[in-house]
Formats: sequence, C-alpha cells, structure tokens
Amino acid sequence: MSVEETLNPLFKKIQELKPQFIQRLADAVAIKSVSGDETLRPEVVKMGYFLKSELEKLGAYDIQMKDLGIQPPPVDNPKLNLPPVVLSRIGNDPAKKTVLIYGHYDVQPAGIEDGWDTEPFELVVKEDEDKLVGRGSTDDKGPVMGWLNVLQAHKELGLELPVNIITCFEGMEESGSIGLDDLIAQEAETYFKGVDAVCISDNYWLGTKKPVLTYGLRGCNYYQIIINGPGADLHSGIFGGVIHEPMTDLVNVLSKLVDVNGNILIPGVNEMVAKVTPEESKLYDDIDFDVTELNLASGSDTAIYQSKKEILMHRWRFPSLSIHGVEGAFSGAGAKTVIPAKVSGKFSIRTVPDMDSAKLDKLVLDFVNAEFAKLNSKNTIHAELIHDGDYWVSDPFNESFTAASKATELVWGVKPDLTREGGSIPISLTFEKQLKTSVLLLPMGRGNDGAHSINEKVNISNYIEGTKTLGAYLHYFGASQK
Amino acid sequence: MSVEETLNPLFKKIQELKPQFIQRLADAVAIKSVSGDETLRPEVVKMGYFLKSELEKLGAYDIQMKDLGIQPPPVDNPKLNLPPVVLSRIGNDPAKKTVLIYGHYDVQPAGIEDGWDTEPFELVVKEDEDKLVGRGSTDDKGPVMGWLNVLQAHKELGLELPVNIITCFEGMEESGSIGLDDLIAQEAETYFKGVDAVCISDNYWLGTKKPVLTYGLRGCNYYQIIINGPGADLHSGIFGGVIHEPMTDLVNVLSKLVDVNGNILIPGVNEMVAKVTPEESKLYDDIDFDVTELNLASGSDTAIYQSKKEILMHRWRFPSLSIHGVEGAFSGAGAKTVIPAKVSGKFSIRTVPDMDSAKLDKLVLDFVNAEFAKLNSKNTIHAELIHDGDYWVSDPFNESFTAASKATELVWGVKPDLTREGGSIPISLTFEKQLKTSVLLLPMGRGNDGAHSINEKVNISNYIEGTKTLGAYLHYFGASQK
Ligand SMILES: [Zn+2]
Ligand SMILES: [Zn+2]
Ligand SMILES: [Zn+2]
Ligand SMILES: [Zn+2]
Repeated sequence: MSVEETLNPLFKKIQELKPQFIQRLADAVAIKSVSGDETLRPEVVKMGYFLKSELEKLGAYDIQMKDLGIQPPPVDNPKLNLPPVVLSRIGNDPAKKTVLIYGHYDVQPAGIEDGWDTEPFELVVKEDEDKLVGRGSTDDKGPVMGWLNVLQAHKELGLELPVNIITCFEGMEESGSIGLDDLIAQEAETYFKGVDAVCISDNYWLGTKKPVLTYGLRGCNYYQIIINGPGADLHSGIFGGVIHEPMTDLVNVLSKLVDVNGNILIPGVNEMVAKVTPEESKLYDDIDFDVTELNLASGSDTAIYQSKKEILMHRWRFPSLSIHGVEGAFSGAGAKTVIPAKVSGKFSIRTVPDMDSAKLDKLVLDFVNAEFAKLNSKNTIHAELIHDGDYWVSDPFNESFTAASKATELVWGVKPDLTREGGSIPISLTFEKQLKTSVLLLPMGRGNDGAHSINEKVNISNYIEGTKTLGAYLHYFGASQK
Repeated sequence: MSVEETLNPLFKKIQELKPQFIQRLADAVAIKSVSGDETLRPEVVKMGYFLKSELEKLGAYDIQMKDLGIQPPPVDNPKLNLPPVVLSRIGNDPAKKTVLIYGHYDVQPAGIEDGWDTEPFELVVKEDEDKLVGRGSTDDKGPVMGWLNVLQAHKELGLELPVNIITCFEGMEESGSIGLDDLIAQEAETYFKGVDAVCISDNYWLGTKKPVLTYGLRGCNYYQIIINGPGADLHSGIFGGVIHEPMTDLVNVLSKLVDVNGNILIPGVNEMVAKVTPEESKLYDDIDFDVTELNLASGSDTAIYQSKKEILMHRWRFPSLSIHGVEGAFSGAGAKTVIPAKVSGKFSIRTVPDMDSAKLDKLVLDFVNAEFAKLNSKNTIHAELIHDGDYWVSDPFNESFTAASKATELVWGVKPDLTREGGSIPISLTFEKQLKTSVLLLPMGRGNDGAHSINEKVNISNYIEGTKTLGAYLHYFGASQK
C-alpha cells in the first residue's frame, strides 16, 4: 500500500474528529500555564499533567515527568520548582525509525486588560472567520495538541504508527527553557538514544497563504555597555556642565554601532558573513512574499528595502544590530532632571553563517572600548556579552525535510516554501548537536497568528490540515530509507 | 539700642529653646507629607494644618488655608485635591517693612528600603555627629521650622518683631508647585500687597564650612524628541535589519547635541550667553570651593574642570545640556530582544543670562529636526519643549542682601560667600515679577545635606544658628531705610 493510500483514511478520521480536537485545544487553553508568572506555576504544572494523562490514554508508556529542580534566581520564591519535562514513548520497534517530537506547553502572559477582544484563556471558536482564538492556540498548544490528535486518529483507526515516537514537551520555553539543555545532554545516550530525526512545530508560515518548511535560524549575541560615572544619580542643575555624564558617553558610543539603514559599522563583522552564491540567490525567487506583507506586519511604512529578495536576505542570512534600550536612565513619563549615575545600553547582533561567535564578541567589545577611549571621558566603561545563541542552518533536502515537503504538498496541494527565520529557537541547535541528528522545523500556524500578542489565534484549517501534515510527515519519513 | 544689643537676648533664648525646636522638627518630620505620592495626600494636608496650628499658637492671624482645587492630570485619582497654601500674617504695623517668607512643607518620597540607615520619617538626633537625620530635615521642614522658632523666641522674650511677616508655605513644591504661580498673581495686590522683600530659605551652602547668600539661579528648558516607527514593539529577530529602528535614529540625534566635555553643539546657543566681565570674574576669587568638594559631592572623580573658577562658572553662569533618559525603550534588567516602536529621548538645557528662551527653543528644535532629516529615516520625528523656567539673577548688594549678609556675619563670624546655583527655584522669579520686589535666597543647610537623597540631614548647628540668622536678618532688614 502506498503512503498516500494509508493516509486517505487517516485524513478522513482526522476530519471526523475535528470537534474533539477543538475541544482538546480548548481544554489546554483553559489552563493558564504562564511560565513567566510565578503565581501561575501550579497551572503550568497542571498543564504538564494534562499532557501526561492524554498521552496515557493514547497509548504512550515509560512516561517520565522530568524534575528540573529549583528555578535559579532571579525569582520571588527561592523554592520555586521548575515545571516537569514530559518524556514519553509511543512504539519501540527496532525496525522503525524514531522521531523525537518537541513542543512546549507553557504560554506567554495574557489578560483581557491588554486589549484582547475575548477572554484569553477561553478558546473562542469562530467558524465563519476560520479561527480559534486564545492564548497558546498557535504558540505552542495548537501544535502540541496536533501531535496528540495524530495519535488519537491512529488509535481510533487501529492504524499502526509508521515510526517510534518520543515526546519532549517542556513548560519553560517562554522563560528561556531553563534546564532543558542539560536534560537533553543527559538523556542523549539514554532516553533519547537512537533518535533518527527531531521535529519541532513551534514556528509559523512566512505569510498567510503558503506553507513553509524552515531550515535556518539566525543566532543572537546580546551585549551591554555599562558606563559608570558619579556615585549616585545627580541633579542636573547642580552638576550639569561640570562632570562627565554617562548618558552623553553612552549615546555617543551607541551611535557608532549601526547606521540608520541597518548597516553594522563595527569593522570586521560584515567580512565574516558567507557570500551569497548564485544557487542560494535562486532559492529566494519562488518564495511567496513582498514588501506589503512586511509593512502589514510592522504596522508601518518603515521598510529599508523594497524588493522581496533584499528583505528576506536581510532577515534571514545577513546580520543585524538592534539597540533595545537603556537601563538606569530616566525611563518614565514626564520630565525628570536627573543625571543618571550608571547607565547600561543594551544591544544585540543577529548572527548568520559563517560568523564566529567568539570572534564577533572580540570585535564588538574591542570596538566599543576603543570608541569610548576616543571620547576621553573620566567615566568608566564595562562592555560585556550577556548571552549568546548560535545560528542554525540545516540541509533542506535531507530525508526528514523531503518527507515534510511531500506531506505538506499532499495536504495543501502546493510545495512548501523553504524559509529561514530571523529569530532564534536555540533548542534546535542543542538537539542537533547533542543527538547528532537532523532537526526539522515544521510549522502549523500562519505568519499573522499573533503569538506573544493580543488575540492570538490559529486558523481552524491550519489546526486540522496541520494535524494531517504532522501525521503524513511521520508516514513519509517512516517509509524513507532507514 | 543697636540691632546687635537686641539680638543678644534673642540668640540666648534660641539657644535655650533648642530642645523644643528639635522636638518641633521631629513632629514635622513624622508627618509623611510626600506630595508626589497620591496615597499620602492626607498626610500632606495634615502637615499644612500642623503649620496652621503652630502659627495660631505663635500669634499669627488672618490665617488662610488657600484651596488650589483639583490636581490636574496625570493623576490616578481624578478628584485629588491639592494641599492648601498656608497664608498668615504676624504684625501689621504700617511703620514697619513687610517680609514675605516662603517655604514648602511637602517632601520627597523616602523609604528605608531605598538604603536609609534609619527610618526616614523618624527624626534621629545624633548629638555627637551634630546631625538631625530625617526626610525633610533640610528640605524644607528645617528652614520652615526655623521661621516658627524665630516667632516663638520673640514671643517668649516679649520682643516685638522688627517687621511685619507674611507666610506663604506651600505643599506641592516637590511636585512642580502646581497652582502657586496663579495664587501669587491673584494675591499680589491683595494678601501680598505692600511686601518689601521676599525671603526664601530652601537651598544650601555651596560647601560644608562657609555660609552663603544666593543671588542667581539657572533656568531650565526641558525637551523631548519622539521618534515613531512601527505600529507596535517588534521582535528584533524577525524585523532586525529590514526596518528603520527608532532607537538607532534617536541615539544618532542625541549624540549630536553635546560633546563629552559638556560643550553644547547646537549652533547659536553659546552665542547668546553674556560675556564674563573682569568684575564678574573677580567675584569668584574669594569663594570657598575647590574641585575636591565637587568630587566629594558627585562621589566620583569625573570633574571636567579642575579650577574653582571654571567649575563654578560652568555650574552657575554657563548653560549645560544633560540627557536624562529614554522613554519607551527597554529599561529593565536583563536582556529583552525588542525593537521599541516609539521612543522619546529627554534632555534639558540649563539657561543663563542673556539667553532668550523662545529663541533657544527654535534653535534646539530646528537643529534636532535638521539632524534627523539628514538621516533619511522613514520613521517620523516630533521634537518639543516639555516645560521651561527662566533664569533669575538679583543685585546681591541691595538692602535685603545687605541685611542677610550682616546677620550671617554676626552669627557665623564670617562674611557669606555670594553664590549662584545651577538649579532652578522657579518661584523666585514669580515672586520678583508679580510682587515687583527683591527676592533673597538665605539657606540654612549645608551642601552635603542630601536633600532628595537617602539619609537626608541638617546639622544641629545649622538648624540653631540658622534660626538665629533668620531672626537677625529680620532685625537688620527692619532697621534699614524704608
Ligand atoms: Zn513557541
Ligand atoms: Zn512563544
Ligand atoms: Zn526644597
Ligand atoms: Zn526639594
């Protein structure tokens, strides 16, 4: 029987179970599993146990609720426990491949007072608008429920799974995935032994019409420049004009980093970037995107580039430098005449192949220190890296991507665009390095879902067709050469 | 009888009443009259009525608790009443001169968690360190109690006051003196009719050893540069490198305003400043000050100038430009990868003779707009003046200053330094203009009292000798030619 013949009844069953699948998502959304709010930690834990109970019903075994210990500072409650990582297995046939599926069951904070049209933790079904609205509907409860839906459809059909599955569902993704790197390293040769591919469904289509597969992410090196002057904040009436002011020094140094068109001015940085080959350039030709989508997404007409290729290349394969803000200066409304004593300018650089992270740090910090030295200020500077995460690029034509491409084409009737993303999903790189296997990003939702924003939604069609796509991916991957 | 003969028993009485005077200050400090904290507004009002009750006991009459109405927005409570201004008279002899004494009974916020060594609203008497520690001890409850002390000493001695006194004690000074300008204008020809001099005791010695009289203040024009980009804050991973970022534009423009040595770079500004005459230059020679005092006060070694004259001139008679901060950008601890959508850079210019405030505004705003235009950013700018207050300079040799100089010399045994201040006390100019009379700034506390800071104190000696100085000033001024 061909894969397509197997998938036919599976798709029918998924369609038939649609009301139950929507109810499953509604049950999940109702749990306020906000990892960034300590007072809601019991809800996050509850959400972990909801998954455990669902997985049990669906035939998973060897379920381990991995305790990651106490959450490190800064925390209000010094004894706050991290939510468990839900590991489980479905199938253990040595003849089959093994796919590790990753997702997160925590969500961003949300309150109706933020401007939501409806209660964020009540899933609202809008059949006429093809929408399911609620916090986590697309990030990342929708995709996680998608995997459970796939298991249920197989179970009800009595259809054997084409691969062994290992789940790795975490509850701290929105708060830095604390502890997960260590867990992956620790389980690489034990629970995760023998994994053939990792599939992550925690990102989005580029736009709203065409499905994509994602094969690259930029990295991010985050820096701060601390300038220290007087012993305490001073009154600008008394001290203005007679002492070196940290804010003056800081805006001077920050103004040297990047020009208004986004060009990084730190010598040596752009030289590290891989040259665009004609082959790579061609990859951009077919992608469905244009500047109006960027303007729609940014809510403005502030695009630096007008052509699709320039926009996508600068988002995906060129570095960028953003100044995020200043800590320690006056930041409130109104007019305060303070001279801030100690200010910290925060900026980050999005990194791409073939930038060397350590070399970048040296270039950045040396440049900042040299520019500050030129000022001849009596204030002192300390510039440092706060955190970094490497870029990730995969081969978009390997077996896992090929299976995902076939699955997408079968479900959506169109070949997916091969995209990269400007942001980071650091765990992708961790899985790739620790499990020495390929990672695939297979998104369910659309580019306008509003993850992290108000009125977060997933389209009903994306939720249902996305469930089919996840199922089809497993079958195509299972059928490919082991 | 000479003035000195009259003052001899007055000073003795003041010395004798020292314990009661300290208790009066302790009672005042215990009232948490923080005008900037709406929840403490009843305490501010209570402090106003404390003064009313004290004034009544000390023989004041025609006491009017002037209602300034509802506090204008921004406020949490839209019906928040402003605290009353306490007007009263002591004496009404047409043969005597009339002195208006101004002070404020509100204080800056304070909490032990800010780093105070003791409870800020409990006056701590440290006899061995010659200190009275508590919020408001020097700013401005100490001086206001000083005036009450003078009244009490006269009353207990049965000594006639040498002048008629009008009090004007407000409760909103630390929050912009809302409503006071209007009240002064309104009462100029009524309650305040016939005032011969205004005496304000709400500032400090330049240093810690030598008393001063203050004859000049800088003005302050406060500006903001608002740069507007995307419709909402964006993720720098997704939008970094493809849109014009408001923070990049802002640091560029801010870096053009002032150099690291405090030189204002806006063309035309320095040209408006009055030239230093040889006579003026000489005035600085005798003043007791050096760079070590500046370093001590700033808690650092960040002085731009090393010579006394350069430091004082740049503090008092040259303009300065300080960048206070940025509203709308990331300002917390840690590392947030946001692209702020709308940022507002705040800066102010301290003004001096003969700068024209309106001309300055035009120079500043035109320059900011021109520098932004050069960037060719697609973001938009709006630069504006938030508020302004003119500089003030008096004749330091008029009758009121001469009386204060004699009083100071008698009490402290040394001629006071004639100083200016870098900061503003906008009400000085209002009194001068509205009452068409001279204004004197006669400080009680020292330069290191820590007004607005933690562990605010007034020296016991300054509180007691300062009370004597206020009393002596009234007698010398009363004895001078009407
Ligand atoms: Zn997510
Ligand atoms: Zn998320
Ligand atoms: Zn004051
Ligand atoms: Zn004050």
